[in-house]
Amino acid sequence: MLTQAQKTKTLCVLQPGYLTALTAGMNSSTAVENIYLLVIVTLISVLQNAFFAQKVERECQKENKHTPSFERVSCANRNCMDAYPTFLAVMWCAGVCLSQAPAAFAGIIYLLVRQKYFIGYLGHTSQSTPGYMFGKRIIGFLLLMCILGIFNFLLCRYYGSDYKEYTETITNAASALLLLP
Amino acid sequence: MLTQAQKTKTLCVLQPGYLTALTAGMNSSTAVENIYLLVIVTLISVLQNAFFAQKVERECQKENKHTPSFERVSCANRNCMDAYPTFLAVMWCAGVCLSQAPAAFAGIIYLLVRQKYFIGYLGHTSQSTPGYMFGKRIIGFLLLMCILGIFNFLLCRYYGSDYKEYTETITNAASALLLLP
Amino acid sequence: MLTQAQKTKTLCVLQPGYLTALTAGMNSSTAVENIYLLVIVTLISVLQNAFFAQKVERECQKENKHTPSFERVSCANRNCMDAYPTFLAVMWCAGVCLSQAPAAFAGIIYLLVRQKYFIGYLGHTSQSTPGYMFGKRIIGFLLLMCILGIFNFLLCRYYGSDYKEYTETITNAASALLLLP
Repeated sequence: MLTQAQKTKTLCVLQPGYLTALTAGMNSSTAVENIYLLVIVTLISVLQNAFFAQKVERECQKENKHTPSFERVSCANRNCMDAYPTFLAVMWCAGVCLSQAPAAFAGIIYLLVRQKYFIGYLGHTSQSTPGYMFGKRIIGFLLLMCILGIFNFLLCRYYGSDYKEYTETITNAASALLLLP
Repeated sequence: MLTQAQKTKTLCVLQPGYLTALTAGMNSSTAVENIYLLVIVTLISVLQNAFFAQKVERECQKENKHTPSFERVSCANRNCMDAYPTFLAVMWCAGVCLSQAPAAFAGIIYLLVRQKYFIGYLGHTSQSTPGYMFGKRIIGFLLLMCILGIFNFLLCRYYGSDYKEYTETITNAASALLLLP
Repeated sequence: MLTQAQKTKTLCVLQPGYLTALTAGMNSSTAVENIYLLVIVTLISVLQNAFFAQKVERECQKENKHTPSFERVSCANRNCMDAYPTFLAVMWCAGVCLSQAPAAFAGIIYLLVRQKYFIGYLGHTSQSTPGYMFGKRIIGFLLLMCILGIFNFLLCRYYGSDYKEYTETITNAASALLLLP
């Protein structure tokens, strides 16, 4: 048995070519397998960015540039864009380190909150604007997912105990809490 | 034959150590294999960002800060930076989900368009500025590539039919259309 | 020996199912293995972003909005956010293409520099602000790491000579130079 194992080992080491080819083929499909929900959420966020940018573009083309409505739409767009790389980074880290489904779900809810924030920011010029930050709870949730994933990986590496399934189950359940208003 | 297969299976399961090592080694090289063009385009975009930032820096150091030229260069830089995360996200998604060569090609063209936009924005103070958005066609093309890639992956997963080669060929051909003015 | 090899090959090709499963399982763990330091640095940077955003939020909620201190904190935050996607992109490329430890180390130092820049920007209103750019040396170092990684990959692919170990050793040593003031 052991000899057989050693033989296979030698063979694998001697002929890595076909394994590489196999792994490369698999790699790209399994890679997409693990991230496709995240990609879909990213696509939706890009469409939303385009929608925001179009709003700004339309205000830009009006003659009188320094109207309050231009200020508002420009400021709302800027606040959304300031937070965008942070959101993308934390969503992808959470999705890759722990599991993609709750991360993508939280991403979708973040996009809804962002849409509401943008619309609310445009509002009537007499209203006060909402603050600078939005979606704090969702970013916090994604951050917690990342920390859990990294913590679990380090536990698994140094102590050999793998709690990934438990953390995934808990995260799936906890992501439903984001639906609370 | 089957017994042999089962043996190999058992061996692989019993000794995942060397396979992990092999896969890890391959992983990093095949991973780079699949993304190296995207990395090169990202590097060029970073150099371009540094060029933009240096222009702003130089205007900042002048004594009188609220000149029209400072306003222009600062606004041009901000518009470019606002669109940058969106561009990176959509280029990487397109490159990973479908194929990297047309995505990287579209990326290069986007960078050229951005350079032209930035230079055009600085122009003479009497000229009107170009709008807020630029490179819409390229972002749209990359978005379409992502959607095709995801669609193909889902088809492949649920129906077992793989059209990846066709879509890659079509995408390669279609990317040439971006060269049209 | 060769017959055995061919058999294994056939088996692997005939039964890729379990290999896929294995690779998929490994994939996610080895993927995290190769990036976990980068993820940790990204998390710290997200926390820092939240700290910056909270400062802006607090200034926003004051009644009189156009005070110099609001201008300062808003401008400092904007400069930091403008450079953020560039930093993330170059750190991740450097970490994936060459090796993660020096990239993460440079990332940590960049975050320290950014913290110092933000605090320095708030300073007394009588002081002059630091320029628009910061952490140029670190971004340059990460850029160099990317270029080395890509160059090494291309050498390895077209000439078969792999200098990855040497470049990693040199990079590890060179990253200590970033500690110089």
